[in-house]
Amino acid sequence: MGKTCVLAYSGGLDTSVSVKWLQEKYGYDVIALGLSVGEGKDMESVRQKALDVGAVKAIMIDAKEELAEDFLLPALKANALYEGKYPLSSALSRPLIAKKLVEVAHQEGAVAVAHGCTGKGNDQVRFEVAIQGLDPDLEVIAPVREWKMTRDEEIAYAKEKGINIPITDENPFSIDANIWGRACEAGVLEDPWQEAPEAAYEWTAPIHLTPDEPETIVISFEKGKPVALNGKSMSLVDIIEKLNVLGGEHGIGRIDHVENRLVGIKSREVYECPAAMMLIQAHKELEHLTHTRDVAKFKPQAEQQLAELIYEGLWYSPLREALLAFHEETQVNVTGEVKVKCFKGQATVLGTRADVSLYDEELATYSKGDAFDHDAAVGFIKLWGLPSKVYAKKQKTKVKV
Amino acid sequence: MGKTCVLAYSGGLDTSVSVKWLQEKYGYDVIALGLSVGEGKDMESVRQKALDVGAVKAIMIDAKEELAEDFLLPALKANALYEGKYPLSSALSRPLIAKKLVEVAHQEGAVAVAHGCTGKGNDQVRFEVAIQGLDPDLEVIAPVREWKMTRDEEIAYAKEKGINIPITDENPFSIDANIWGRACEAGVLEDPWQEAPEAAYEWTAPIHLTPDEPETIVISFEKGKPVALNGKSMSLVDIIEKLNVLGGEHGIGRIDHVENRLVGIKSREVYECPAAMMLIQAHKELEHLTHTRDVAKFKPQAEQQLAELIYEGLWYSPLREALLAFHEETQVNVTGEVKVKCFKGQATVLGTRADVSLYDEELATYSKGDAFDHDAAVGFIKLWGLPSKVYAKKQKTKVKV
Amino acid sequence: MGKTCVLAYSGGLDTSVSVKWLQEKYGYDVIALGLSVGEGKDMESVRQKALDVGAVKAIMIDAKEELAEDFLLPALKANALYEGKYPLSSALSRPLIAKKLVEVAHQEGAVAVAHGCTGKGNDQVRFEVAIQGLDPDLEVIAPVREWKMTRDEEIAYAKEKGINIPITDENPFSIDANIWGRACEAGVLEDPWQEAPEAAYEWTAPIHLTPDEPETIVISFEKGKPVALNGKSMSLVDIIEKLNVLGGEHGIGRIDHVENRLVGIKSREVYECPAAMMLIQAHKELEHLTHTRDVAKFKPQAEQQLAELIYEGLWYSPLREALLAFHEETQVNVTGEVKVKCFKGQATVLGTRADVSLYDEELATYSKGDAFDHDAAVGFIKLWGLPSKVYAKKQKTKVKV
Amino acid sequence: MGKTCVLAYSGGLDTSVSVKWLQEKYGYDVIALGLSVGEGKDMESVRQKALDVGAVKAIMIDAKEELAEDFLLPALKANALYEGKYPLSSALSRPLIAKKLVEVAHQEGAVAVAHGCTGKGNDQVRFEVAIQGLDPDLEVIAPVREWKMTRDEEIAYAKEKGINIPITDENPFSIDANIWGRACEAGVLEDPWQEAPEAAYEWTAPIHLTPDEPETIVISFEKGKPVALNGKSMSLVDIIEKLNVLGGEHGIGRIDHVENRLVGIKSREVYECPAAMMLIQAHKELEHLTHTRDVAKFKPQAEQQLAELIYEGLWYSPLREALLAFHEETQVNVTGEVKVKCFKGQATVLGTRADVSLYDEELATYSKGDAFDHDAAVGFIKLWGLPSKVYAKKQKTKVKV
Repeated sequence: MGKTCVLAYSGGLDTSVSVKWLQEKYGYDVIALGLSVGEGKDMESVRQKALDVGAVKAIMIDAKEELAEDFLLPALKANALYEGKYPLSSALSRPLIAKKLVEVAHQEGAVAVAHGCTGKGNDQVRFEVAIQGLDPDLEVIAPVREWKMTRDEEIAYAKEKGINIPITDENPFSIDANIWGRACEAGVLEDPWQEAPEAAYEWTAPIHLTPDEPETIVISFEKGKPVALNGKSMSLVDIIEKLNVLGGEHGIGRIDHVENRLVGIKSREVYECPAAMMLIQAHKELEHLTHTRDVAKFKPQAEQQLAELIYEGLWYSPLREALLAFHEETQVNVTGEVKVKCFKGQATVLGTRADVSLYDEELATYSKGDAFDHDAAVGFIKLWGLPSKVYAKKQKTKVKV
Repeated sequence: MGKTCVLAYSGGLDTSVSVKWLQEKYGYDVIALGLSVGEGKDMESVRQKALDVGAVKAIMIDAKEELAEDFLLPALKANALYEGKYPLSSALSRPLIAKKLVEVAHQEGAVAVAHGCTGKGNDQVRFEVAIQGLDPDLEVIAPVREWKMTRDEEIAYAKEKGINIPITDENPFSIDANIWGRACEAGVLEDPWQEAPEAAYEWTAPIHLTPDEPETIVISFEKGKPVALNGKSMSLVDIIEKLNVLGGEHGIGRIDHVENRLVGIKSREVYECPAAMMLIQAHKELEHLTHTRDVAKFKPQAEQQLAELIYEGLWYSPLREALLAFHEETQVNVTGEVKVKCFKGQATVLGTRADVSLYDEELATYSKGDAFDHDAAVGFIKLWGLPSKVYAKKQKTKVKV
Repeated sequence: MGKTCVLAYSGGLDTSVSVKWLQEKYGYDVIALGLSVGEGKDMESVRQKALDVGAVKAIMIDAKEELAEDFLLPALKANALYEGKYPLSSALSRPLIAKKLVEVAHQEGAVAVAHGCTGKGNDQVRFEVAIQGLDPDLEVIAPVREWKMTRDEEIAYAKEKGINIPITDENPFSIDANIWGRACEAGVLEDPWQEAPEAAYEWTAPIHLTPDEPETIVISFEKGKPVALNGKSMSLVDIIEKLNVLGGEHGIGRIDHVENRLVGIKSREVYECPAAMMLIQAHKELEHLTHTRDVAKFKPQAEQQLAELIYEGLWYSPLREALLAFHEETQVNVTGEVKVKCFKGQATVLGTRADVSLYDEELATYSKGDAFDHDAAVGFIKLWGLPSKVYAKKQKTKVKV
Repeated sequence: MGKTCVLAYSGGLDTSVSVKWLQEKYGYDVIALGLSVGEGKDMESVRQKALDVGAVKAIMIDAKEELAEDFLLPALKANALYEGKYPLSSALSRPLIAKKLVEVAHQEGAVAVAHGCTGKGNDQVRFEVAIQGLDPDLEVIAPVREWKMTRDEEIAYAKEKGINIPITDENPFSIDANIWGRACEAGVLEDPWQEAPEAAYEWTAPIHLTPDEPETIVISFEKGKPVALNGKSMSLVDIIEKLNVLGGEHGIGRIDHVENRLVGIKSREVYECPAAMMLIQAHKELEHLTHTRDVAKFKPQAEQQLAELIYEGLWYSPLREALLAFHEETQVNVTGEVKVKCFKGQATVLGTRADVSLYDEELATYSKGDAFDHDAAVGFIKLWGLPSKVYAKKQKTKVKV
């Protein structure tokens, strides 16, 4: 038997053609690896397709729980949003897929792994950097980037090789999805002045079609992890999937973003992330109740750092581990409940409560029972403002206004 | 004539009683200074009230334009949101009022200024630090913090001194407002698990009472400054006031925040800031189109720094001037148009265009005419991922996943 | 028996007078707590002095090891230098002393603790905030700040009460010391244009009196912790004490700093920290060899944050715990050896080696055997510089130079 | 006449061979551009050499003043040190050389520019990104990276083409120098455990050969710019050159650094930067005296950002302009004098004074005349420590120590 390559296989045209191309170009036996991360594909038919197009073996793995626990949850604890907007849904699945590719390569004795990315996106970087960070000795191949066929040439190649072309509805967009969100790019989206068309959205209703009655839910967190909906304990995957449905019905989680890609260009992306956006928002509010002021000031920098690192494909790096240690430690008291109203495209946090809430009604109240020492303010202001006062005095001339 | 104190005068009970109290306790002649910053008061009646309660002089100033140009606009350029949520409406008016107090004190030869804050809030700090930063030799008095009367004692004092008590509808909340927003605290809001009642809101409609048709507008910016609505040139004050009305009708701009006060406690605040939130959002989107990646990465830190500094009363400080120089320089290309849909509590940016847009369709496109060099990615990935690869190789054991 | 107060007792005039004063003013029985942290005092005579001046009990604790392991080591891992200069020697001992005060108070059933700080320094803040962070119900008393006696009045009070005044050489400076360094302030130092006199220094030789031969040592680290000198395993305390002597002889570790105090003023301080400065420098160099680029970029921010937090008395806070988790995680590969030459006031790192060094000679070499892919640079530069290129192209007019 | 390429010409082997190679490979007429930036070359002989090896024109420019005023000075205001150690001497000259290449190309009607960098260093990135940021339409060629000749092949090529090989002492190191410093790499330095040999140093004396008497100087700054030495006004270039000589004699400014290159590898570099290190140190000390606490806290982040950006070749970018605006604004009061003692490898700041010093002796003093309000500390501590206290109280269980 020849040398083997493990291919991340989706069942689509590109990766189907890749199976044959890897055989012909590199002489590799191809093992197709299909991962279910919540995009709603029938994994059994993906397996069959892989074998039909020439894979020597097809391995299907349900990786939703691993995705949720090991990748999405740490990102949630860090409220990770790239450029303040994008919850990194595709970016977070890449290191998982890379890990599975490496694991299967080791297990099957393969010498190479392959992915179906083009030369223009972020995902090629994420896959390859992750794979090298896990096993620097594995060869990594990117057939689509390498072969430079147009779509027509690709189809001709498929026909010539007897590859059964997957029948897909001609989606004008390029799509990627998992339980943390759905990404849509290309097509008419390429003009940032044009409104994204309804056809770009699949998971979320347009506001005029959402229910006219709000729905209020309670999300429970334990040390930063969502553990229950409306008081009912559920797995993280189940909570995410429930919220995707509920949020989608209410039109929650649409994101339209002109973002800076790692490869140096700006790109317009449309995302639908109902669960991700609701959970991040609820989690942030619980943090507002449970974090001290100094944590509230510094954590955003560590959050941005983690978000950029994930976006830029550096999951398997010592900085990621150090940042996760920081974020994990901040979650020790993020235990409590968040009441969220879903209505007309918005998730509104109505109230929060926590086991160790740092909101102290006796200190905060303006009514009787106020425990705050009002006189202390006089001394505080004196020293807090002292640098400003000295500055003004020393400048003699007043600070310009 | 005796020594004079300039009092920031609102026409309410506290500052009305302060006029007499400053005379009796300190022997000062009191000059009442009333500022119109968009809270919608009849300044003529405020002036009359001031004289009625014993002020030797009453000066009314319309400061909306100065507020907008010198304080709100720099904050907008920095997308300033305290703790990611609060556009600093009250916080931004404090340095303006302090400046006016100092200016009037100089002009009238006063030796002291006074404000009506209690000992528990942020505003006492902001006023006093700002005043010291402008003129460290002026005495600053905070009658309400000092006298420690209950409301009943205050009313009794007013009656005894023949002060005509301003008739107000008994608002259960403590309110502050200007064109950048309306703040509401106290009362039932003091339990963060309870939903804020509709009574806490005045500028914005609840979603079920908003129009069933969206309204789409175009906001034009020049170097980061809003200059036109729907193609019609308008002053910044006019744009803000228009957007407050429009946004308010559509229920946009409600913020419910458990925030960290400078004086060390958490406090729950409800804000309504339709114009501020719409302008910041639109401005951010135009920056996404016009800022390079490196600016997009660093500016958020300089933004957070400015927001904290404003919240913490340090407007008149060298750091503010340096941060403003930074933010101003980033605005050089933030010129263009933003299309915003107002609907059911949300302002959604539908599209952006700019004179110097850094979105390059030829580079971004997935269709023909793609000018991006796909081969360059191979070299890029090699060097980008080299530290990860070396790390993995050197560790021999693989990075833990 | 009456209520009890535990006093941090140094044996000096202030705390000796405090024993009596706490009895008379507050009616407390006073337990004197003396801590040995390396300032070289005879603890037995401190104990006797405490009893002589009226303490009901005197407890002496050798806390050097706890100081080193629990406070200095985490600071070293973070290369903690306040304002880039001061290794926080006094600041790091304060939370330890606070902890011991609280522990002894609990163990002895005391209701109050007391310290000898004035109202002007950082240490009062550090003590009181730390004590409250450990047990918010303990009363904290600062006799010296409260009594407002001049030194002459204090001596008169001592005589009147029969307190045997400790005989000290009239040191014109105010001194604090522990194994991490010696701080000296006041006196002629108060003019920042004047050179600090030799009298301000005690641990370090002036350069003209240092040996004319260098001494080279090797410091070994394990996960960021110094574990051996010249190959000989030693405790952290021993390493620090050895380096203080060695470095002191060679004139290493003098710091002259005009620093920003937490209480709002600038103050000029002279520090001698031979061991601290040598260890931080050596540790940093080992990190240069073992940290990836992304860690090298972000860690300095987390270092500055920790240094400020320690300086500002917030050791017992959730942010400290989260930052320590971050720094601890970064130390996983900081294991190796650093060769340091001590000579004429300078510690010079001559060489570093590590178990998992990320310096790869095959990649770095300019001679044969170069494993670096020079062609990859072309693609890398293309994408790295793409934002600059697009910016230049889009601006049409060139960037101003 | 054919198309023209402007080559950055040093007079060494690589660029001499490049002249012929650019003609033969690309058919370009080559204009040699020699820049004097303080490396001490005889520019007239460089010019002659260029013509001798076949350049159609040779342009020599003295760019020291432009380097100092437009590149070094902004970096000094930002105390720019890459990874806390390297004052960016080579990195700062690259954007200047790129600018000159572009200016000469425009002036001479050239369509291409060329530089002599290999494919492994940072400088290729800096040149090419800078050139693209100035004129994205110019072709950029890197002959040495492209031709892949070994040194022997290069010499053979030179002989074959009749190129007179420049006679150089066989320096085992790779050197780059300008007035901001001298960089040395390769050779025996490639083992980071080995001490750098004396042969690696040229500008600075080893400590045992430095004078046995210290020399104390006074450096005057105006708004952050060095303007005088010992009270004598001098140009920036003159100050730098004087300090290089003086500092070099006293052995000041040696830096031995294992640094993270932009191209993903670690490299060991030895730098000599007497003037740069003395000026940065003196400048920092003057900032300690004149900056408010909040500027002192934030500026280091903006400094690190600028240093990284310069190292990474992004001088011609909007972020650089915004950061410079920030740093410039912070210099408004950095006017004063710094007393520096040069002795045995160290520059020690003995004293500082400033026109607007924020050190206030009346506030700082421990003797009579103390203007500091000691009682204010009580209130300050109460509110400063309130979050810690609430946290401790709410946790009920004490914070773990």
